[in-house]
Amino acid sequence: MDLEACVDSIAEREWQTETSGTVRLAVIGLGWWTVEEAIPAVENVEACRVTVAVSGSQEKATAVVEDHHQLERGLTYDEFHDGAASQLYDAVYICSPNALHLPYAETAASLGKAVLCEKPLEASVERASRLVDACANIPLMVGYRMQTAPVVRHAREMIRAGAIGDPVHVLGNNSQSLLELIDDPDQWRLDPSLVGEGASVTDIGIYPLNTARFLLDSDPVRAQATMSSTSDAFAAVPDERAGFLLTFDDETIVVCTASQNAHASTSLRVIGTEGELHIEPAFHMETKLRVTRGGTESHYTFPETNQMEELFAYFANRVLTSDPIGPNGEHGLHDMRTIEAIYEAAADSAAVPIDTPSVDQAN
Amino acid sequence: MDLEACVDSIAEREWQTETSGTVRLAVIGLGWWTVEEAIPAVENVEACRVTVAVSGSQEKATAVVEDHHQLERGLTYDEFHDGAASQLYDAVYICSPNALHLPYAETAASLGKAVLCEKPLEASVERASRLVDACANIPLMVGYRMQTAPVVRHAREMIRAGAIGDPVHVLGNNSQSLLELIDDPDQWRLDPSLVGEGASVTDIGIYPLNTARFLLDSDPVRAQATMSSTSDAFAAVPDERAGFLLTFDDETIVVCTASQNAHASTSLRVIGTEGELHIEPAFHMETKLRVTRGGTESHYTFPETNQMEELFAYFANRVLTSDPIGPNGEHGLHDMRTIEAIYEAAADSAAVPIDTPSVDQAN
Repeated sequence: MDLEACVDSIAEREWQTETSGTVRLAVIGLGWWTVEEAIPAVENVEACRVTVAVSGSQEKATAVVEDHHQLERGLTYDEFHDGAASQLYDAVYICSPNALHLPYAETAASLGKAVLCEKPLEASVERASRLVDACANIPLMVGYRMQTAPVVRHAREMIRAGAIGDPVHVLGNNSQSLLELIDDPDQWRLDPSLVGEGASVTDIGIYPLNTARFLLDSDPVRAQATMSSTSDAFAAVPDERAGFLLTFDDETIVVCTASQNAHASTSLRVIGTEGELHIEPAFHMETKLRVTRGGTESHYTFPETNQMEELFAYFANRVLTSDPIGPNGEHGLHDMRTIEAIYEAAADSAAVPIDTPSVDQAN
Repeated sequence: MDLEACVDSIAEREWQTETSGTVRLAVIGLGWWTVEEAIPAVENVEACRVTVAVSGSQEKATAVVEDHHQLERGLTYDEFHDGAASQLYDAVYICSPNALHLPYAETAASLGKAVLCEKPLEASVERASRLVDACANIPLMVGYRMQTAPVVRHAREMIRAGAIGDPVHVLGNNSQSLLELIDDPDQWRLDPSLVGEGASVTDIGIYPLNTARFLLDSDPVRAQATMSSTSDAFAAVPDERAGFLLTFDDETIVVCTASQNAHASTSLRVIGTEGELHIEPAFHMETKLRVTRGGTESHYTFPETNQMEELFAYFANRVLTSDPIGPNGEHGLHDMRTIEAIYEAAADSAAVPIDTPSVDQAN
């Protein structure tokens, strides 16, 4: 196996096909991620443009429109649901609290708009399934931006090419201090009616979970987990800290930790029968890959791309070409099933099987 | 917190007390570890000497005696149990298959000899308990050599001093290709009647488990696990590959992987509320420690000591001074309880509580 050939084997934006035109976007939910990451990213993508901002607050929507030259119109949630200004956008980017994804997706679908929905897909499997069903006739993509990172895509190619033999174990960790990032204990990520069953697994445990699925081309079939919350701010959610143990359908054993109240740390390690891949940091600014095979350790630094720009560029490309899009709703739904199984496993102190549908993702 | 002060805070061999005299050792079990690692290590330790070699095979015992100038006598197992040449040694080092530790320890104790027993203590909790009981009146130490490594001891001091805040998560992995190391599918590590319940958790999963206990000054109270075997050579044991999830009594969540049939890889990561410690490689030749706190990453390289020399030097020191010795039998017994809980948890697909006795170790 020639690792270097593998490194050269995939081109930059290998998914890109010839297109013309522009996808006009309505962004829904104007939290810091949308304003500081998503809108600036779209401004750098040729094939799309943000034209509409949707928020619970008319003032916020208006302020965001005034601050960004591409934007034409600010809408309240009610106005959006009424179909206001729908001639101004072709697709929506949903970045609201998890438990509000469904109504926005339903409205977007009823208006015939394509949907790029942030992960996790919704707050429960039941609601996520309804979201997928609602979007049956429009393009639906889930915003797993880490799947766009060149280091992650090359790592997957290396695994597919046999660089580490058969995968045996994955170790992943993702932690941050949520209250240092957003200094407010009343935020939606700590409110089960908006976030779903918990704060850490849903919001950041999903990164090692989903990246492992992407790297292995394999899906979890069984979950075990433990979690606890002791701080006051985390009293409403069970997982201030969590650990979970997944068995994948290729027999790989995946262990992960996630916490919204710990030192910021991210890494992903895939150990196979013949070698190992290690990505650190992971899940956001990842560029560095260490590959160990036999006695040889190789270090690669891949380009640091803006993952949100990659996400929007790919989404726009697929909407314009009508080519299959992914990670699709079914892919996102399997993370939801896994996350629900993780919470159930922790509550019941028992392993929980996960139904496997596994329609292949397009991406 | 001043990390540098912490680095300087413990002296080399901080456990060492003034002694005179020599501890003469009988080594029991003449596999590659005893012959290639243990005996050469003892030869470099001033306070002890190997005088007797005990083996199932008279020829092997004789050959080892002939090859090593310190050795005076080779014994068969039967001769050892009969008390032959007991005037030639003061203590025994037991490095036989796990399920044979008990009878050698019983004989040694009945002869009034101190015991340094390899880990795991025995093949089951029941047998390990009998071993501890049998050694009630003699010094008993368990051979957790990784606890002697300067990098590990300094990491523990840093955690104790608050360098990473409160520990939240530990991730540990240990894997190797057993059949590349010992090219024989009929070896004792793959035979449940000699190794215990499995091959990977007992033999190498015990390293991240025990090092986590040492670093955290805390013990597991609950285990969850998954494991599988698919290769013919591993048909008799359940854990060609294993993952386990432990809850410690300080609420730290510890996730580990272990495999005797994977690429050789070792690491240990401790994530706290304020920072992170990372040791890689771990459990054998470890010297490098990365400490991350706030935005600062510090790298330390500690001396590479021969862990077996450290182990024997400490053991001899404690035998000569009659000071408390550790890791003691109770410490080793808690690993046995944890390991048994891991296998039970994997078999039952349910969390298994672990009794906590936790008599403090002396070390």
